[in-house]
Amino acid sequence: MRQTQLFTKTKKLAPKDEMSKNAELLIRGGFVHKEMAGVYSFLPLGLRVLNKIENIVRAEMNAIGGQEIRVATLHPSDPWKKTGGWDKIDVLFKLTSRTENEYALGQSEEEIVTPLVQEYAFSYRDLPLAVYQIGQKYRDELRAKSGIMRGREFGMKDMYSFHTNQTDFNRFYEIVKKSYFNIYERCGLNAKVTEASGGNFSEKISYEFMVLTEAGEDDILYCEICEYCVNLEIAKAKEGDACPKCQKSKLRSAKASEVGNVFDLGQKYAKDFGFTYMDEAGTRTFPLMGCYGMGTTRLMGVIVEALSDVSGIVWPESVAPFRVHLLSLDANEQAEEIYKQLTDAGVEVLYDDRDARAGEKFADSDLIGIPYRVVISQRSLASGLAEVKRRTAKSAEMVPLGELPNFL
Amino acid sequence: MRQTQLFTKTKKLAPKDEMSKNAELLIRGGFVHKEMAGVYSFLPLGLRVLNKIENIVRAEMNAIGGQEIRVATLHPSDPWKKTGGWDKIDVLFKLTSRTENEYALGQSEEEIVTPLVQEYAFSYRDLPLAVYQIGQKYRDELRAKSGIMRGREFGMKDMYSFHTNQTDFNRFYEIVKKSYFNIYERCGLNAKVTEASGGNFSEKISYEFMVLTEAGEDDILYCEICEYCVNLEIAKAKEGDACPKCQKSKLRSAKASEVGNVFDLGQKYAKDFGFTYMDEAGTRTFPLMGCYGMGTTRLMGVIVEALSDVSGIVWPESVAPFRVHLLSLDANEQAEEIYKQLTDAGVEVLYDDRDARAGEKFADSDLIGIPYRVVISQRSLASGLAEVKRRTAKSAEMVPLGELPNFL
Repeated sequence: MRQTQLFTKTKKLAPKDEMSKNAELLIRGGFVHKEMAGVYSFLPLGLRVLNKIENIVRAEMNAIGGQEIRVATLHPSDPWKKTGGWDKIDVLFKLTSRTENEYALGQSEEEIVTPLVQEYAFSYRDLPLAVYQIGQKYRDELRAKSGIMRGREFGMKDMYSFHTNQTDFNRFYEIVKKSYFNIYERCGLNAKVTEASGGNFSEKISYEFMVLTEAGEDDILYCEICEYCVNLEIAKAKEGDACPKCQKSKLRSAKASEVGNVFDLGQKYAKDFGFTYMDEAGTRTFPLMGCYGMGTTRLMGVIVEALSDVSGIVWPESVAPFRVHLLSLDANEQAEEIYKQLTDAGVEVLYDDRDARAGEKFADSDLIGIPYRVVISQRSLASGLAEVKRRTAKSAEMVPLGELPNFL
Repeated sequence: MRQTQLFTKTKKLAPKDEMSKNAELLIRGGFVHKEMAGVYSFLPLGLRVLNKIENIVRAEMNAIGGQEIRVATLHPSDPWKKTGGWDKIDVLFKLTSRTENEYALGQSEEEIVTPLVQEYAFSYRDLPLAVYQIGQKYRDELRAKSGIMRGREFGMKDMYSFHTNQTDFNRFYEIVKKSYFNIYERCGLNAKVTEASGGNFSEKISYEFMVLTEAGEDDILYCEICEYCVNLEIAKAKEGDACPKCQKSKLRSAKASEVGNVFDLGQKYAKDFGFTYMDEAGTRTFPLMGCYGMGTTRLMGVIVEALSDVSGIVWPESVAPFRVHLLSLDANEQAEEIYKQLTDAGVEVLYDDRDARAGEKFADSDLIGIPYRVVISQRSLASGLAEVKRRTAKSAEMVPLGELPNFL
């Protein structure tokens, strides 16, 4: 894409009321636009990143047998009253229509998905099954100061699974855990899984996936040697104690950001909706249910928090809006040719064809954070070379022009 | 996909309160689930159709230079109060947060997109530009009896363009008109464009794209020879009159469904938000704005209304959930092999591997409406043939098993 065709421009400053690093950088780079605290629109660059994150999540959910659906976000109040969520969940947005009907905005979808699946699962032969969706969620947060990491409107992948017994839920949880770690790894993040307190309705323990970052809202206690990791909220040990699992190291504490969670919902929702299936013995039985959340916009915010540097964002290749940022310094004719070569070879290129100073182009390129920066200038052309710099590298390499498509 | 893996099942009956043909067929086929009047969730089969429709729309919008964004649906009240929409638009859903902030749910996005574009378009050199999104919209309809054709929550593509002068808007409108006709054609529909009355705020004429169907909520008057077509609401002629444009035929009236609209918004929104750009003479000037809507879920409903028959839905190939419905009649071993061959060849196949009667499989296949039905039975295998029937054809053809991948 030509940068002169992109309707957004970089900004020197984010809005004054923006307090989070992720939104500050994303706004300045032209990835998102702030509509109000906790509500952001995604601009062309930001939507490209979000689409890539969503596609990674989608591929991993499909790979473990998740069936994608798109659930309504405007909910009737009945199912929310049936489960108690209407009165108990303080972040639930409620509204009333002209005809005096009460609605809720989806903040999670157990109330819709449980009776939906109930219409199709009659027998133990129909279980287990897992459905998921990727869509908007709404939460009436009192404060929303974490940019796209905690929004009043945000994108989320939520999966719901239904099982005949606890062993089967546990089996599936291990599969989901692996796919969650795949997702974080593909997004360039290092995640840990912790035990945390249950959700609104779960009396059981829940699992949270955490990325260590200074912007984190949670405090965790973890072992550097084994997988032991626990949320400080429910930890029995403290910093400096020996790891209760491997005994080989002392526990450390850190700030961390939640990037996913799992709730073992037991039979709570099945019982609320009278959802039974016929088991092998011919008895009507309530299925067990699990809920697996992952904020897609939050994940994008955490990537920015965890991987940016003083000059701007540092996108991992997997979710970068483009692979190559091609900068022309008074060499548009040759840059055009290279732009054509690279795009013909299937490389995603943002081509800075603007009539702007070199310093501005370099600063914008660092801010936007595309993995490879390629500079074409009269000087480099004289020696038949292009300057290629990885966003994560300190210095650039000189690459012969003819080898560029293969190099990238 | 194996049908035994699909969590939905066909139903004999739609909910009793469902009055529209489109939702009745879509619910019975397992494409959508009704949450309440005017609100539907999309199940795996339905989401596949909707994704294909969205991708056709996306490709056509990208081809004319539209830049895709994803706009927030939870809106602050300020911009809606600024334009007068807060009090004037009766279908606007309003809600209040715990902290007494007032919000609106997006029913169209001029109020968000105008100030958003304002932050990036400063000069005549930044214009024209067009941004669009595909996402959920919300309208507080008094009645919602048309299935997915008129929802309280629905999917929509909305594009907004900004221009320096009326000639340029007119030029772009002609380009959009062509791309809209491309979309309808690719979706198997025959559309006409009419002049209609303006929208909520437009004093100018608007354009509506119409598909002739018995389920249509509008009455149009059209000429069978030329392109003349007008909404009866604003028609000066009547049925049987000579066409005022070509004079060659008599006007006919028909029921039609709107599948898209264009509003010439003039400077209304630019003035509301004080959005000016610097023109070539160095004067600050308000841009002209156009809005181009197309309901994506509505389009899916119209396809069902326009193309279904007594046995069920008839999907055009371009948006069908699968290309081939493979039915095994007691021949699972050979059907498995053909399923593998076809999917390996890149053909999208729904494979009915259920343990069900032939009559049930045939009826479900007609209801679901996949373009090609392939039946593998012991009888056909004996002669090395498969029975292939197009959903639109009266009779089947016998095709040698080895030629199936090429045939399909």
